[in-house]
Amino acid sequence: MTEPADPPAAASTDAASTAPFQYQCLARDVGTDARRGVFTTPHGDIQTPTFMPVGTQATVKGVTGDLLRQTTATLPDVTAQIILGNTYHLALRPGHELIRQMGGLHRFMNWDGPILTDSGGFQVFSLSALTKIDEHAAVFRSHIDGRKIELTPEHSIEIQESLGSDIAMVLDHVIALPASTEAVIDATERSVRWAQRCLNAASRPDQARFAIVQGGLDETIRAQCARDLAQHAFEGFAIGGLSVGEPPPEMYRVLSATCPHLPEEKPRYLMGVGRPIDMLEGIARGVDLFDCVMPTRNGRNGFAFTDEGPLKLRNAVHRDDPRPLEANCPCPACRHSRAYLRHLFVAGEMLGPILLTLHNLTYYQRIMHQARQAILAGTFSELLQRHRQLAGADKPEAV
Amino acid sequence: MTEPADPPAAASTDAASTAPFQYQCLARDVGTDARRGVFTTPHGDIQTPTFMPVGTQATVKGVTGDLLRQTTATLPDVTAQIILGNTYHLALRPGHELIRQMGGLHRFMNWDGPILTDSGGFQVFSLSALTKIDEHAAVFRSHIDGRKIELTPEHSIEIQESLGSDIAMVLDHVIALPASTEAVIDATERSVRWAQRCLNAASRPDQARFAIVQGGLDETIRAQCARDLAQHAFEGFAIGGLSVGEPPPEMYRVLSATCPHLPEEKPRYLMGVGRPIDMLEGIARGVDLFDCVMPTRNGRNGFAFTDEGPLKLRNAVHRDDPRPLEANCPCPACRHSRAYLRHLFVAGEMLGPILLTLHNLTYYQRIMHQARQAILAGTFSELLQRHRQLAGADKPEAV
Ligand SMILES: [Zn+2]
Ligand SMILES: [Zn+2]
Repeated sequence: MTEPADPPAAASTDAASTAPFQYQCLARDVGTDARRGVFTTPHGDIQTPTFMPVGTQATVKGVTGDLLRQTTATLPDVTAQIILGNTYHLALRPGHELIRQMGGLHRFMNWDGPILTDSGGFQVFSLSALTKIDEHAAVFRSHIDGRKIELTPEHSIEIQESLGSDIAMVLDHVIALPASTEAVIDATERSVRWAQRCLNAASRPDQARFAIVQGGLDETIRAQCARDLAQHAFEGFAIGGLSVGEPPPEMYRVLSATCPHLPEEKPRYLMGVGRPIDMLEGIARGVDLFDCVMPTRNGRNGFAFTDEGPLKLRNAVHRDDPRPLEANCPCPACRHSRAYLRHLFVAGEMLGPILLTLHNLTYYQRIMHQARQAILAGTFSELLQRHRQLAGADKPEAV
Repeated sequence: MTEPADPPAAASTDAASTAPFQYQCLARDVGTDARRGVFTTPHGDIQTPTFMPVGTQATVKGVTGDLLRQTTATLPDVTAQIILGNTYHLALRPGHELIRQMGGLHRFMNWDGPILTDSGGFQVFSLSALTKIDEHAAVFRSHIDGRKIELTPEHSIEIQESLGSDIAMVLDHVIALPASTEAVIDATERSVRWAQRCLNAASRPDQARFAIVQGGLDETIRAQCARDLAQHAFEGFAIGGLSVGEPPPEMYRVLSATCPHLPEEKPRYLMGVGRPIDMLEGIARGVDLFDCVMPTRNGRNGFAFTDEGPLKLRNAVHRDDPRPLEANCPCPACRHSRAYLRHLFVAGEMLGPILLTLHNLTYYQRIMHQARQAILAGTFSELLQRHRQLAGADKPEAV
């Protein structure tokens, strides 16, 4: 809830308030920092490492709740999966007050598993016309109707408490890279202060707060930020500001420099990442949670992830191919031939994006399942190695 | 297969060839001509009366096969439901030869229930640039690439045999109304001759052929056409050329004049109809099968059918309405509030069209279920009366 050592009023409730959120490490990999754990939330246990599908506007695009559950239902060790909602989008439309009035985000979108909401910070900086940022707040114009909005750390928490997500992210100061070391330090220190303000403003004992480590590509700044944040009673820690265009090895380097400074007993979340290989490299460095629009967005655009590399379904080569995307995939798309899936995209049928979204989400969950199994079995390094080879042979996956 | 009395070669195979297709009447209503029956096909029994969702391009738009099945799964007396595919669309894209090569339409779209395919005639007349029609064929230009195509009755059957549907429709000569009596008679007589050519060209014993009664709004021509067609060994009879803009009472009048001239022991199909009240009026006159794009198309556009009348989900009145579309509906949409469904449409989310399509299809199947139950219970007239009142109070349902 709030910092246990500093504000005494809050310290007494600290044990009780974090009780609904417990991270337990079940196994560690021998050759890497990968770990297999369970994170307990009011809406169910999350088996980690795991991937969180993105449900920006209170829906994972094109997927009903039942179908979303099916992307994990065939995986025996998954008892609850988690999805991500975007505070910025929901606050603008339909409005967090309406969602609160409708019983909260879980009930509004009819999803009874865990939900994580971001703080709105990233969307403010990437989608809207940002007019001003200072110590008090970010001021920006809505990308929908252009009206001026002020977002403070306190306001971000208030919105997320209205939404009622299981995990709220703190508001951070995201800056575009490359930037001067001075600017990176300034934004990082502000992010730490804002994270504390978020903690102080928080009031829901059934909602966890995750801090966000910033610091650009600078290992020293990242490590310092991680240590600063680790002193406070956050229920989890995220690593933000990565996967924004830097070469993947740069991201891996920053992860290696950051994770050792985060508490062992709390979950770690790498925001907005990414390709399967990026997630596996993240797991190898001790990350537990991931989110990315890639499986859903690529699916809508006709790109399928497979263990043989990505497939572009519109290509004529699939015209009369009777094989499924993957022979061993339990998803609804893989009951069909590639020829049928191609037909749906060529004919402009909605079912094409729906089925490929389901396949890609299933693929991501299968990779996470494999990672969890491999960590327990002591074979994670082999899984990682296999995907390094696959990624090396990849055609570009971006859409 | 072919006319039993006339071409002796085919007559001997007639009993065997119609064996997979048997219509059995289970009950008749007392106050109307409504009947409750079962039509047996190679892909399962169809409980009639029933509604066939339209799957134009080898998919009911936005709906996976599993979800489509769920629209009927909660209805206890439904063992197999039937969907409709459009021969014209499938022949142009992806091509019937490809579908044949992929194992037929059932396998291509992964639907193991019965499928009815139309003849292509209606789309030729409504979608394409028709260049010429004579006794031999309809010549038209593809609406996709403009190439010239000749469609004969024999070719239509050949395409449908490639698709492998359970029920093939004969190619008919559809004309725009109003038309002179002479033109209507000419097109109707040509349709009868073409129907016979379709029978003669047919070779698959696992595919039924349904004839189509034409005749505009003229009761005498309709009755004569029905009697002419009834002399031949069709496994079912359709009534075409209605619901094309005429006032509903005109359609009901034509149905009343037509159905008594069709064989009692064969199913009857009213093509392209329609609103719930139109289907119930059709059932009251002895019709067993219906198809219409209305539930799917209206659903995609944000209109929901309910027993209280249609709802336009984009309307602001639904903004904070916590109620489902219908309290007693088992569909996936009705696990959500109207407020959530409105949000999806306002935010442009694919899930809105998907959920409303599922609700509307479920609504149509529920009406058919109610009709089947009511015929058995002797209460069909009350059901019809209730819907007549509902339709009278309706706002316009068209989109
Ligand atoms: Zn799959
Ligand atoms: Zn419903």
